[in-house]
Amino acid sequence: MENNNILLGHGSGGTLSHALIAELFLKYFNDPALLQLDDAARLNFSAENIIFSTDSYVVDPIFFPGGDIGKIAVCGTVNDLAMLGARPLFLSVGFILEEGFSVAQLELILKSMQDSAEEAQVRIVTGDTKVVPHGAVDKIFINTSGIGEPISGAHVSGHNAQIGDVIIINGPIAQHGIAVMASREGLKLEVNIETDAAPLNHLVAEILETVPEIHALRDPTRGGIATTLNEIARQSKIAIKIVESALPILPQVQSACEILGLDPLYIANEGKCLVFCPAPKVDQVLTIMQKYKYGQNACIIGEVIGDPPGKVFMETAIGGQRIIDMLAGEQLPRIC
Amino acid sequence: MENNNILLGHGSGGTLSHALIAELFLKYFNDPALLQLDDAARLNFSAENIIFSTDSYVVDPIFFPGGDIGKIAVCGTVNDLAMLGARPLFLSVGFILEEGFSVAQLELILKSMQDSAEEAQVRIVTGDTKVVPHGAVDKIFINTSGIGEPISGAHVSGHNAQIGDVIIINGPIAQHGIAVMASREGLKLEVNIETDAAPLNHLVAEILETVPEIHALRDPTRGGIATTLNEIARQSKIAIKIVESALPILPQVQSACEILGLDPLYIANEGKCLVFCPAPKVDQVLTIMQKYKYGQNACIIGEVIGDPPGKVFMETAIGGQRIIDMLAGEQLPRIC
Repeated sequence: MENNNILLGHGSGGTLSHALIAELFLKYFNDPALLQLDDAARLNFSAENIIFSTDSYVVDPIFFPGGDIGKIAVCGTVNDLAMLGARPLFLSVGFILEEGFSVAQLELILKSMQDSAEEAQVRIVTGDTKVVPHGAVDKIFINTSGIGEPISGAHVSGHNAQIGDVIIINGPIAQHGIAVMASREGLKLEVNIETDAAPLNHLVAEILETVPEIHALRDPTRGGIATTLNEIARQSKIAIKIVESALPILPQVQSACEILGLDPLYIANEGKCLVFCPAPKVDQVLTIMQKYKYGQNACIIGEVIGDPPGKVFMETAIGGQRIIDMLAGEQLPRIC
Repeated sequence: MENNNILLGHGSGGTLSHALIAELFLKYFNDPALLQLDDAARLNFSAENIIFSTDSYVVDPIFFPGGDIGKIAVCGTVNDLAMLGARPLFLSVGFILEEGFSVAQLELILKSMQDSAEEAQVRIVTGDTKVVPHGAVDKIFINTSGIGEPISGAHVSGHNAQIGDVIIINGPIAQHGIAVMASREGLKLEVNIETDAAPLNHLVAEILETVPEIHALRDPTRGGIATTLNEIARQSKIAIKIVESALPILPQVQSACEILGLDPLYIANEGKCLVFCPAPKVDQVLTIMQKYKYGQNACIIGEVIGDPPGKVFMETAIGGQRIIDMLAGEQLPRIC
């Protein structure tokens, strides 16, 4: 690239736009469909159903321990597809860049997106870039939309959780939110906390191929596991009981939450998955999960009960019970 | 909605997010797939190929004569799909809202999106909303991504233009850019100029179903017809000659361009389509186009020639010839 910083002309659709695409984007994104440089991609697709998802990413700061906005933009949409029982195939990418944004930083983000896409084995097939004047956006926002094909036999949905289901999580909670928050506020933590951002599609695919009886899956991102469990309790019209002492959390994350006065139940994750599993299948599912890098610490955190529908309870460490509500205000804006 | 303005909590994923969706979004968007409120949509799809496209919309101002950001967000992606020979089926919508943004304005935008989606007969099936603190984005940005199925027999691409093709446009150029520009700068024009934003998919579908021999289609948005013709000349390795006196332009748009010192060839359109048509099929295509509201003023503007590949020429009104380059800088930022 001739320029060190993004100019308005890089979003014009004209010569500078074409240079940005040819000299920077195509250095990292080189799918044959994308290389056509038409305004849309034509792709082979053989399933009878498609799964379609979209998310915009506005995280601040754009680089943080263990990841960046590009990594979560790929992993987040991959995971949204996987949670609905899909094998993610194709991603679109829409960039909104601030005039003056660093080309070197953009390059790091593109590399990170391509690395995550390769790990997830998903193809980046079409894209769009807009540039807005300085001050009209904070550095860079990214939208990714994704298409997946259903994993045969699976029929997971937030509406399908059943009484008696055991709730499994693939590892410790609240890392992503704390990593971003600490980075944003310049907190010096004794032990570095990294985002958990990761593509979970391979892990999920093996679970669903082996145990198609799984009822629901969801990634507890914004609003943390408390909000996600409340969503599923409402959608499925069941109650959920979780056990505080069973919740996996790294000691350094627990300490950071205590210092900052934040409840880890409400802190965003970017590489976690809640699995609603029929009780007889639990051991089988845990064995699968624990084989995977992103499921080594999989464990049971609760179960689905009947009453009262739509509510989430926690059995506390001291033996009491408290209601876990959905997040009411906004604890941490721009967390993803 | 209880609130008159968007709060950060409306993007939290928690209670306020759910209220925003239930009380405002679902008032306008009510597709059965969307109503599931899962993080992705599951959709029936029977074709063997999919067409996939994405665009982010950052237009300023967000309301302008004849349209708003919502209308172009739907029409723009519908048109990108149509131009690659697809029947658009599904749209995703990603909103990025500024804290404090007017709920009443958001409602107008949602209504406008739904109206355009109905006109295009495309389903809005999944979405995402982020809210960022005041100053981190200018009011509202929208991403739409779209999925379409190929129109049987069609094989249009920017790479397929052939020597001898006649180039047709469906109506007058440069309205959108001038409408937005005049509105942004508060120019008082003698005659009001409205955006041409429109969904062209029905018009395109009939052309391609009747004349599958069409070689290329493209909507001349950012950078205007000059930039789009240059793209196709490069992709197809052919030359293009257009005739100045044949270019359709409304007199009030022509006057505004002269006053503002802008070249209409480089001004964005949002409801125009360039058709690269084999010469023997021209009358048939013009007849089809002229039946449609958005094609009444369809006319021939030029042809594809052989040399030198990648170049665009214009036969000027005074009988000379000039090279039409791609847009070099940025004439009008945030035009779409």
